[in-house]
Amino acid sequence: MQLIHFSEDGNSRIGVKTDRGILDLAKTAKALSLPCPAYIDELVKDKEKLAQVSAILEQADERTDASFYVSPEDITFLPVLSHPGKIICVGKNYKAHVAETKSEIPKEPVIFSKFKNALAAHKEPIPIPPNASKVDYEAELVVVIGATVSQAEPADALKYVAGYTVGNDVSARDWQHLSSQWLLGKTADKFAPIGPIFTTADEVDPSNLDISLKLNGEVRQNSNTKHFIFDIPTIISYVSKHFTLEAGDIIFTGTPDGVILGHPKEDQVWLKAGDTTEITIEGLGTLINTFK
Amino acid sequence: MQLIHFSEDGNSRIGVKTDRGILDLAKTAKALSLPCPAYIDELVKDKEKLAQVSAILEQADERTDASFYVSPEDITFLPVLSHPGKIICVGKNYKAHVAETKSEIPKEPVIFSKFKNALAAHKEPIPIPPNASKVDYEAELVVVIGATVSQAEPADALKYVAGYTVGNDVSARDWQHLSSQWLLGKTADKFAPIGPIFTTADEVDPSNLDISLKLNGEVRQNSNTKHFIFDIPTIISYVSKHFTLEAGDIIFTGTPDGVILGHPKEDQVWLKAGDTTEITIEGLGTLINTFK
Repeated sequence: MQLIHFSEDGNSRIGVKTDRGILDLAKTAKALSLPCPAYIDELVKDKEKLAQVSAILEQADERTDASFYVSPEDITFLPVLSHPGKIICVGKNYKAHVAETKSEIPKEPVIFSKFKNALAAHKEPIPIPPNASKVDYEAELVVVIGATVSQAEPADALKYVAGYTVGNDVSARDWQHLSSQWLLGKTADKFAPIGPIFTTADEVDPSNLDISLKLNGEVRQNSNTKHFIFDIPTIISYVSKHFTLEAGDIIFTGTPDGVILGHPKEDQVWLKAGDTTEITIEGLGTLINTFK
Repeated sequence: MQLIHFSEDGNSRIGVKTDRGILDLAKTAKALSLPCPAYIDELVKDKEKLAQVSAILEQADERTDASFYVSPEDITFLPVLSHPGKIICVGKNYKAHVAETKSEIPKEPVIFSKFKNALAAHKEPIPIPPNASKVDYEAELVVVIGATVSQAEPADALKYVAGYTVGNDVSARDWQHLSSQWLLGKTADKFAPIGPIFTTADEVDPSNLDISLKLNGEVRQNSNTKHFIFDIPTIISYVSKHFTLEAGDIIFTGTPDGVILGHPKEDQVWLKAGDTTEITIEGLGTLINTFK
């Protein structure tokens, strides 16, 4: 199932990708007098809410009122999750990216975080902070956790995944290196756009997905998740052995090579107002954001 | 005003320290047919809820039923805040602590984070994780933010503070240094006990508070917040120039010298099951936790 989160007249709505377009769940549910969740976060945490969506979809067919479908051109996207419990990030997780930043291949996953002020949606403008001068993009596969996970083994880890989306781990490199801790450079307001679609885990194999980023139309990153240093089962297991994961937590899984930081110093042209990033992950859609 | 957060028969309750003991707000409000918040988080975010508490208190006097008072010995404390938006931490913020860890005095505040799984209450047992071997304490003054703050100057910063509490920035030193990023060693489950009391900002001057920690009755840390490298106005201003703070965010402001990591290697006896830490900050109470 592929879901989007959008706002209509200030209300939070879930849309479902169908053969006939994006079905507005709330409108359909109202016509059918069925209960309807308003946030994808709810579905991830509560199987009953997921069943509500299935019940609505079962009764939506070619006879469904055409006005129940919305066009992606006409809607305001919201972050696919509105209140993730944790925003966990993995650094240095593709060899070619480690090489371009002249780092060493990590022996264990490098784990850091963002705060929720960093969340942003597909098509939402991302402000360049007044004092940041080295703002960079990072195309990343984002994992959405669907259950409580503690002390999991890699072999069991994928069963705790609710789904996937596309993310941009936007980074102010000057702020990231103000101290040894990267947080400041990672959690500026709107520095974690996610979307446009939440794709349930049954629909993709996360170990082999093309991932690419275009800056103003020019391909800058182009890789595949098969090049992860630590694959998703390993990351989930590793994290779960250090702290407990909960349904609704999300994990940014690291970026491939091609970031601005990886360019020779003389070619480092940092993001500026008006720049647009487009991140595509096979089967998960394209996340587009313009900087302002 | 000094508030505690506790649970009674599984319900979340606020208690207020009065001359006659800790007044159970919910019981008092019920007798007076007044509305009553259940979480200190609500008061911090919503002036109307704070007014509800004042209204209840105004009508509580020597005629109030004695059964409306609870004894701290009889109650189960909850973390003073249950759902802080962010748990922000400052590292290396007392000169003598920087010296004992053989670090350099930072030029700017070192900012890192914990996740909410780390929250714990006064008297709540803190598990030593199965694979962590170097668990340490850190006595800290914790600031509770009471409003949205962005781009604040130090001179204005204190007006955004709702209040203060006592915290222990429990740290697994082996995990903290698995990579360059400290997060893993800082956010194990229950590694951020806060409490026992939330003290509103009008009651204390945070720039001159004695702070001490006893391990199993022996004084290990003993300092004063006047020894901060970066004082609270500077920290709030600095953070607010990198990302937006919101009411309900909390900031651990760094620990003085005396942590186990600061001992000579041969004297480093790390925390083990059965150890008890007692952290006292002048005017804010004593936070006690036993490790298990």
